This record gives sequence, C-alpha cells and structure tokens, in this order.
Amino acid sequence: MDYDVIVIGSGPGGYVAAIRASQLGLKTAIVEKESLGGICLNWGCIPTKALLKSAQVFEYLNHSADYGIKINGAGEVDFAAVVKRSRNVADGMSKGVQFLMKKNKIDVLVGFGKLKSKGAVEVKAADGTAKTYSAKHIILATGGRSRELPNLKQDGKKVIGYRQAMVLPQQPKSMVVVGSGAIGIEFAYFYNSIGTKVTVVEFLDNIVPLEDEDVSKGLNRILKKQGINIMTSSNVESVDTSGDLCKVTVKTATGTEILEAEIVLSAVGIATNLEGIGLEENGVKTDRGKVLVDDFYRTNVEGVYAIGDIVKGQALAHVASAEGIICVEKIAGQNPHPLDYNNIPGCTYCSPEVASVGYTEKAAKEAGYEVKVGKFPFSASGKASAAGAKDGFVKVIFDAKYGEFLGAHMLGYNVTEMIAEVVTARKLEATGHEIIKSVHPHPTMSEAVMEAAAEAYGECIHL
Amino acid sequence: MDYDVIVIGSGPGGYVAAIRASQLGLKTAIVEKESLGGICLNWGCIPTKALLKSAQVFEYLNHSADYGIKINGAGEVDFAAVVKRSRNVADGMSKGVQFLMKKNKIDVLVGFGKLKSKGAVEVKAADGTAKTYSAKHIILATGGRSRELPNLKQDGKKVIGYRQAMVLPQQPKSMVVVGSGAIGIEFAYFYNSIGTKVTVVEFLDNIVPLEDEDVSKGLNRILKKQGINIMTSSNVESVDTSGDLCKVTVKTATGTEILEAEIVLSAVGIATNLEGIGLEENGVKTDRGKVLVDDFYRTNVEGVYAIGDIVKGQALAHVASAEGIICVEKIAGQNPHPLDYNNIPGCTYCSPEVASVGYTEKAAKEAGYEVKVGKFPFSASGKASAAGAKDGFVKVIFDAKYGEFLGAHMLGYNVTEMIAEVVTARKLEATGHEIIKSVHPHPTMSEAVMEAAAEAYGECIHL
Repeated sequence: MDYDVIVIGSGPGGYVAAIRASQLGLKTAIVEKESLGGICLNWGCIPTKALLKSAQVFEYLNHSADYGIKINGAGEVDFAAVVKRSRNVADGMSKGVQFLMKKNKIDVLVGFGKLKSKGAVEVKAADGTAKTYSAKHIILATGGRSRELPNLKQDGKKVIGYRQAMVLPQQPKSMVVVGSGAIGIEFAYFYNSIGTKVTVVEFLDNIVPLEDEDVSKGLNRILKKQGINIMTSSNVESVDTSGDLCKVTVKTATGTEILEAEIVLSAVGIATNLEGIGLEENGVKTDRGKVLVDDFYRTNVEGVYAIGDIVKGQALAHVASAEGIICVEKIAGQNPHPLDYNNIPGCTYCSPEVASVGYTEKAAKEAGYEVKVGKFPFSASGKASAAGAKDGFVKVIFDAKYGEFLGAHMLGYNVTEMIAEVVTARKLEATGHEIIKSVHPHPTMSEAVMEAAAEAYGECIHL
Repeated sequence: MDYDVIVIGSGPGGYVAAIRASQLGLKTAIVEKESLGGICLNWGCIPTKALLKSAQVFEYLNHSADYGIKINGAGEVDFAAVVKRSRNVADGMSKGVQFLMKKNKIDVLVGFGKLKSKGAVEVKAADGTAKTYSAKHIILATGGRSRELPNLKQDGKKVIGYRQAMVLPQQPKSMVVVGSGAIGIEFAYFYNSIGTKVTVVEFLDNIVPLEDEDVSKGLNRILKKQGINIMTSSNVESVDTSGDLCKVTVKTATGTEILEAEIVLSAVGIATNLEGIGLEENGVKTDRGKVLVDDFYRTNVEGVYAIGDIVKGQALAHVASAEGIICVEKIAGQNPHPLDYNNIPGCTYCSPEVASVGYTEKAAKEAGYEVKVGKFPFSASGKASAAGAKDGFVKVIFDAKYGEFLGAHMLGYNVTEMIAEVVTARKLEATGHEIIKSVHPHPTMSEAVMEAAAEAYGECIHL
C-alpha cells in the first residue's frame, strides 16, 4: 500500500480531511488537478470576500461625510486593482494550503484523480500520463461547479458563472443576476455597490429563499433601496446574446419582460463533479447527483468514502470540512458524533449581511413546534447607532414547551460573526433564559442576541 | 407610598433596573440630574464608539488604494463634524431612554437624588427646590467619574478627563494619555489615527494591564507601529501647565523624561459618586469607595440597594445592567442566580480590538489550574486575509483535567463581537471539544475560536 488515505480533491473538504488524517497518524496523499484549496479558496468563499471588502471600503468612502471625513471629489473603483487584490488573497490562501500539506507530510499528487479499483486511485496529469497509487481508504471530495440550466447556457463571456464573475476583464455597466441564493446576492451587491446596474431574477417568491421570510423581506427592501432591481416569482425563459447587449426574456407573474444587460450571471446553484471519477465502474451508488453515504461518509463500497458537495447536506465549505474530519476520525478508529445538519450556519456576505442557523419560524411550525419568537432590531442598538449600521435585526425562535433554541436569523452589519454564538449555544442545548442571562458586552451588536431572546420571553429591556 | 421602587441615577445600571422593575409590575421612578442614560450613553461607551467609527472610516480612506479604490488627494478629518456626529449619536440614545421610560410608565424625577431616610428620596432640582418621594425600595446607581490623582489635577482645559476628551473645541496636535486601560487606549488610538501625536504613559509593566500578557504585548507592538509612543513602567510626577504646551514630568525605569503636549488626558480609572447621597446619614456601609452589598445588591439598610460602579465588581455598563436586573428580580420575589463576575467580558475598541473573558493564563495558573492553552493567529484566517485584517489572535485557556473553558483573550478586527460566543459557552459549561465540534461558518473570523480550541488539543487544522 502506498498510503493509508488518498483524498481526491483539495477543497475545504479534502484538504481538511487530509490534514486531520495526517494528525491521526495516517499516511496521506491528496489529488488535485488545479489549485490547492479547491473552489472555496480559489473561486468561492475567499476571493468573493475580498471583492466585497473592496465594495465596503468604497461605500465608506462614498459616505465618509456622514462620519465627518472630507475627501476631494468622489472616489473611483479601479476594477482591475480590485480583482487583482482578490486574486492575490486567493493565491495567498492556496499557498497556505500548500504549506499545510508540506507541514503535515501529505503528498500532493497533481492531476485528475479517479477511483480505479478497490484500493487504487489513478492520477492523470495534464500531459496525459497516468499513474496509479494504492490506499486502504479513498475519500472522494470532488466538489461542485456552477449549475447550467438548459435555457441559460453559459458561454463564459456574456452568460457566465461565479467563476468568470470574479475575474471579468472590465466592470460591466449592467448585469442580470439569475438566482438569489448567497452567490447571486453577493455578486449583485458587489456589482451594484461599485456602480453596475443590477437586476436580480428569482424564480421563487422571495430572495435568499432558504432564509426566514422576515430576513428575505428585510433584505429585499434594503437592496432595493441600494438600487438593485429585484424581480421575484420570475423565470428566465431565454437569453439572446446575438447583439451587443444580452436580451433576457423573463416571465413574471403578470407577463413577460425583456431585460437588457452586458452580462448575465447564472447563479442557480451547483452541480456535483461526479463525472469520470470511476463511480459507475466501481459500483458506487449515487442518487440524483449525490453519492450515497452513511453517517460516517462510507459509500456502499468498502474503503471508499465521499464528503462535501457530492454528498447530501448543505453544499458549504464548513460542512465539507466537518464531514472530512468526522470521516477521517472514524477511519482512524475514533468515535466521532455524526454531524447535526440542523446546526449548520449559513451566511451571505452582502451588506447588511445575512446569517442563520436552525429552523426558520415557518419550518419550526411545520415541524409541529409551538414557538416563542423574539426579535430585536438594530435600530434599537447603541453600537449599531455609533457604527452607522442600524439596518436589520436578530430573530430567535424557541420551543415554547422546553425552551429549546430552535433557530436564529440575522440581518445586519457583521452578523456573520455573530451567528457562531448561536451555533455553540445550540450545540450545548441552551435555553432562552441561559442566553438572556449570559452577560453580553456593551456596546456590541451581539447584545441583540440576548435582547431578542429576552423579547421572546417578555423581558426585553431596549424595546 | 409614592412608588414601589425609586432608582437614583439613570445610567445603564439605573435605567435598566427601572425598566425591569416596571416589567415586573412595580411602580417605578428614576432620578436623574443630567441626561438620561448616564455616563455610558452620554459620555462613555456610546459617543466614544461613534468617534472610533469615524477614525475607522478615515483609516479605510487612507488605505483605500490597498482595496483598489482611488481617491483624489488625501482625506481630511473635519474634527468638529466628527464630534458633532458623536454628540448626535449620544443624544439619540438618550432620547431612546426617554422613550423607554415613557413606554414603561416610569416617572423621571429631574434633579439630584439623595437617600433622605428609610423609604424616602429627596430630589433637589437645579433651582434649589427639593421634593421628597417615598418608596419601598430605593436603588442607588449613581455611577462614577474620572478619578483625579493628586499630581494630575484636571483643569478641564489642558489636563482633562474622558468627558472633555470627546468634545475638545479643536483637534490637539499632541496629547499625553496617562493610563492605558480601555478608556486611555481608545482615546490614544482615536487621536493618533486622526493625526494627533500621542504618547501613552502607563504605570504598570504592560498596557491594558488587566488583559492576558500576550494581548498586552501584541497590542503594544501594533499601536507602536501605528505611531503611538508608549511608555510603560512609567509614572507622571507632575504637569506644568503654565506655558503654551503642558510639560509632563515622567519618571521611567531608567530616569526622568519631560514630555510636551497640548493636552494631557488623565485616564487612571474612575472614582465612585458616593458624595451627598445620604449614605452616612442613613448608616449605609461602605468600604474603600464602594457600597457594601450582598449577592442581590442589598445594603446593610433594609430597603436600600446599590448597583453599578458604586459596588464591588467591574465598573462596566453591562455589569451594571445585569446587577440592576438581578436586584429588581429579587425585589419582585423572583429567584435570580447571583452574577458570575468571572464570566464578564471586557472590551477595548481600538483597532485591532481587544476582548476577553475569564481567567488570563497567569491568573489560571495562580489559581492552581493545570492549563491547556490554544492560540490561533488571524494571519492564518481566510476571512482576515480577505478583509485585510490579519493582525492579532485568539487565545483560549482550558483546564487540563476536566476541559473547563477557563478564559479567552482576543486581539483583532471585530473581536468585541466574537467574545459573546465564549461568554455563552462558559455559561453553559462548555468543554474544549464542544467548541471544536461546533461548526463555525466559513469564512469568518469566528472560526479562530474553534481553531484556537483545537490548537489546545493538538487538532488545529490551519496551523
């Protein structure tokens, strides 16, 4: 055997699994055909956050007079510099993963990895040469890519996915974003805030449709105020790219509209990378584009595991990492708990930000809970006033009977940093009163969690 | 009886106590001689955060090119506008408290409140007229003020306290800040970042001397890099204000130095407001400037209570609020738990920020704990890279034997919002592994808490 563990794919699922495996004494290799770190580091979480930071700085600059700061004329976005910074941040992170692989003595096998047979992985390099490595345990972590709809084929130039959207040669004057999940909304926010005319088209009734309805509605109102045109309950029927501008035919609840834009960004979810990795040949069972696994990410074929976007569960970096760790700990003979997929936070980094975990109010009621709901608006927060960030709120949901903390839904400045408290609280089975009696520092936005919990129990001070 | 409860002082202890009392069905009045909200809202937490936000925006502007944003020339601080914004924010919050008093049907008695006799409060208006009100329960919440040292007398013009520091008629060119607790460091950071030449003089060996030594040292290094002159183990012997500039004689470990500055800010702690409120006349026991109380804030005189800065415990707004709530819940016959003063977070809002809770490493060892310490630097955080905020770290301390979460110490961008997670975790008696296994969202700064915990147990992924 060449290795104890070979991981195919070096995204946040794969590279984290590899590191944990090495920590646990397993001889480990990782296969990557492109850049270490996968989509998340190179074309996802990290470079988008860099773009969004530039947008935030630009917004501060445009509103600097509100804070008593004078500038000469207006600020200007150097789009190429913004993109370059984002690429530099991504490259730095990828080099960081390289360092971690070396430090943890993990072999990096460059090429396209494929499950060849039980215990064997074939790695095909760019020049076509292939080499086969043996391993007791093979973890598939091949991730996802932008999903293509039949009526929204991506040409990579005018009709693009997230990947092109972060390295456009120049800033488009106009853009239609199809889909309003985290990716769609983050790009819509980014481009709108630097001056592109943006329309968001969402098939469902609400933007960020996985979020609690109050969050969707609140965010919709704010993004509209920022200048984004939002069309919900609307469906893109076709895109005509023959002219200078794309003509996007959108069916709305009331009729048909034709939008014109330089760029159409398709952000309608992800497709999993299951092609050509040897699943069929080796009898690995899949269902609707996902590899079937048990609680410890074992497929039906002994010694073959799958984690991350290619298995059931939220297609999020932190989920993939957690799955990778559990998978490897089980392989190493430890006794990890299965992942609680209902305690996974989700974040959207527009401004104000969105963060949530657990049941929405609607889902809690549908699950049969009698709920106690508390809400605290940042307009009543001292820190938010001082920071000029009064938009949004924290909403919390408790089970009325036993006080179980069912979910939290946040819209506001920096809430992506505040949701961790709720994740940890739910992990520890906190009740409402334990949150209320945890002394949050003043003045912080985080007090809103305590106040929202207090509001659910009629004890809110600042409302 | 006029009231069930009269609260003397409307700071974050007093007004919160009054609201909770009213929620619990008690007829309540509050006495305030100045602005509702006390020092915190009017001259402390809130207006300083507004000033600091202006400084932050100015810094973004000065570094906008790093983010790909171009401006014409340099930005300029309109000091008067910065101060005005801060005052507006404070006034808005004070009006908010006014609204809360009305909404909760709490009578606001304007004037200087004094414990006249058992069950009686005298309120003396500005015009000298006095009126007496009766109440079953009287809560003293008179707060604190800037402490004056004999060799550092404040004249309010050249030698000032925090109050004058936030409304100076013009930006000073130079400033000596005496004391490096939260107040001293926040003003030092603020004035330095808008272009004032600042020297900090600290009597003890480290700045922010209550913090973990790693934080003190890390912050020292960063503030020096920002251009602040820091003198530790140094003592101000005298200030000569006769000339245009103040001459500050400082005794250092190696000799004596004379500093020159337009303004000397004394930030050497607070003194409690115990004068003239009827303590001696009514036999209320005090010790070294603090009113003596039990776990539920009862003084030795029946029906007389004290909360906030004037009792033992950290002189912090959130402590005062928590004490007020517990005091009133006990009065109302509820069964509140005594406050755990070892689970009170402390924050300093310079940039990078400081936040901490629980034992420092040194204190934990002195208390006899065998410790497991984990540290995660933001330089290894993807979100920090994307946000351009790689300074600082999270340090966590666990009891090696039982895994008890003894303390957390953070230095970095926005950590004042991250400490709440640790407060809640400690309230819920979390162990290290429960933190490690709480899935923090990626990419966030909050992942550093999970990674630091993992580092303590040899399971850190990103180091």
